[in-house]
Amino acid sequence: MPASAVYVAGVGMTRFAKHVGRTIESLGHEAVLAAIEDADVGRGDIDEAFCGSSYGGPLIGQRIQRDLGMTRIPITNIENACSSSAAALREATTAIAAGRANTVLVIGVDKLTGVGGGAIPLGADDLEATHGMIMPATYAMRARRYMAESGVDSRQFAKVVVKAHRNGARNPNAQFRNLITIDEVEASRIIADPLRLYVCCPTGDGAAAAIVSNRKTSARRAVRIAASSLQSGEYKTGFRDMTWSELTARTAQIAYNESGVGPEDLDLAEVHDAFASAEMMYYEALGFCRKGDAGRLVDNGATEIGGKQPVNPSGGLLCRGHPVGATGIAQICEATWQLRGDAGDRQVAGAKTAITHCTGGGISGLDHGACAIHVLAT
Amino acid sequence: MPASAVYVAGVGMTRFAKHVGRTIESLGHEAVLAAIEDADVGRGDIDEAFCGSSYGGPLIGQRIQRDLGMTRIPITNIENACSSSAAALREATTAIAAGRANTVLVIGVDKLTGVGGGAIPLGADDLEATHGMIMPATYAMRARRYMAESGVDSRQFAKVVVKAHRNGARNPNAQFRNLITIDEVEASRIIADPLRLYVCCPTGDGAAAAIVSNRKTSARRAVRIAASSLQSGEYKTGFRDMTWSELTARTAQIAYNESGVGPEDLDLAEVHDAFASAEMMYYEALGFCRKGDAGRLVDNGATEIGGKQPVNPSGGLLCRGHPVGATGIAQICEATWQLRGDAGDRQVAGAKTAITHCTGGGISGLDHGACAIHVLAT
Repeated sequence: MPASAVYVAGVGMTRFAKHVGRTIESLGHEAVLAAIEDADVGRGDIDEAFCGSSYGGPLIGQRIQRDLGMTRIPITNIENACSSSAAALREATTAIAAGRANTVLVIGVDKLTGVGGGAIPLGADDLEATHGMIMPATYAMRARRYMAESGVDSRQFAKVVVKAHRNGARNPNAQFRNLITIDEVEASRIIADPLRLYVCCPTGDGAAAAIVSNRKTSARRAVRIAASSLQSGEYKTGFRDMTWSELTARTAQIAYNESGVGPEDLDLAEVHDAFASAEMMYYEALGFCRKGDAGRLVDNGATEIGGKQPVNPSGGLLCRGHPVGATGIAQICEATWQLRGDAGDRQVAGAKTAITHCTGGGISGLDHGACAIHVLAT
Repeated sequence: MPASAVYVAGVGMTRFAKHVGRTIESLGHEAVLAAIEDADVGRGDIDEAFCGSSYGGPLIGQRIQRDLGMTRIPITNIENACSSSAAALREATTAIAAGRANTVLVIGVDKLTGVGGGAIPLGADDLEATHGMIMPATYAMRARRYMAESGVDSRQFAKVVVKAHRNGARNPNAQFRNLITIDEVEASRIIADPLRLYVCCPTGDGAAAAIVSNRKTSARRAVRIAASSLQSGEYKTGFRDMTWSELTARTAQIAYNESGVGPEDLDLAEVHDAFASAEMMYYEALGFCRKGDAGRLVDNGATEIGGKQPVNPSGGLLCRGHPVGATGIAQICEATWQLRGDAGDRQVAGAKTAITHCTGGGISGLDHGACAIHVLAT
């Protein structure tokens, strides 16, 4: 999959922010209307919709579509933690490839300020959470191990954050629009040692939407979905390498095989940098460098816009923000804008091929619930 | 869809009940293991999984599969209210038809005793709920209108309940196993006039699982998915006919067209009888009789096992129970058992074609969020 070609016909998103006074539905409306405005297809052409959300509650897609007068079609809600809307895009891609639909709307939305006081809600019956193994703690342990094994230091984590802000400051949809220095990152308060505040992505609210179609767009450079890959983790017990994301590596390999594109062919990547330390580990799992070698990529600027392998030109989760279920399609928005040459002053020059990487649901160390990877190409 | 044939390779479910002491994951395990035991394919053949659940929380499918050692495959969670697992089956069917997967596991699960004190949780920001328009109230208004327009009376609602229990008493997986009389139904307390306790389906906990495959089962009578249809409601304002489910009628028509099967060809139906009054209205929307004529079907026993058009041989939601997200696949279990001749003393003799009908997410009167209909055939 996809057997027949599937194109991105239009994208749109809200700014990611703490939209305290707005409903989750209104965030969805804004993103959907922006995607329709951007698309070469009309709203009447949309014959199916998916909505990816982790905390939106029952029938979130229907609640959004109802107020837009866009029902009477199949609407299906997908929950796959941080990969919710990326997994929704995979279903949309398959629906088109199978001939079930011609043009499909995919929404990603979440409003963290509407649940759990703005943070990811914890379950009292979640054994790991009740023992303190919440996300920052898990990633902190992993980061510490990574420092010990690979010789990276916290300044390199800070450099990733500086890059995220340098890019995100140029992104009107980013939650943070400020530049930041290594010293400012290093002076921010500890969340879970060695992870400081700005090394962790913020929580927030937002929505993103993409319209995908079997028709090649006419007016703009056509962006094609060259691979759509989803996998779940191993969930194996036993002491394994905490610094290696087997799930990301496996999902990426499937996407590389499907698209015929290798890591060396990519012009840019949107990577799931929930923590700066994780971005570095994902460089390795995605094949951007050899294991243990991500520090070098950070030091030599390879992953900056203008570098050999730009990562997160949008600002990534660290700076654009991370309203859980919205992130997957927000990555698709950025990749589409980049491949169309519409990314303004954060444009990666001549970008023709992009990868988007979403992974979420951390349980049992490095294993994650769902990793979704897409390759987009002109 | 489906373009290429998709077969039900195996099914299994827990008893529906108030499983207060059990986790939602353990309910899922029991259903999955039963489906594997029933199937002609091994667990190693399953190359993708879907989980339909409305209240299971993030990564419910992964949480179930993790403990069974059945991860390292794509796992996708689907939420579509009462149609959650039926909508999941539609994605599985398309994944197979598209060649993305050969054999797919579909789970339906919910544990109402684990949320909202056993009832469907109400949102404080749900305008209709805060004004009292919760499910029983909405269905009661509709039932009252139906009585006025069609001349049905509460004894006919009671007859539907008596039928449900007559069937469900023979179903080891049913939440209620008792027979009931018209007088007992009529003497039960009012929930929302004219709907009395036993005219409303119970809430409860449970799981169901189906394994679908592109391979025809060898050992048993092959059951094929002849149609898989999903639609969302109109959500139109304005005073319309509250007694006519436009959504069910439209979704059914798509399924009839897709399968080439008409209502007159069906040997049995599993219908979404969340309330006995609704079952009667769905007879009309599904084309089992003309509008306003359901009372006659109830009076002449046409929808009894042994009648011309048996409905809910499982006992339906009224008697088998309704753990929201589990119901869609529970209906598939019943249809599969019936078509294989495995339904024991509730067998519909010689059944070759069945329809399953799930609809949920009542907002704005008769419009519903998601209606999913499948046609199964030998």
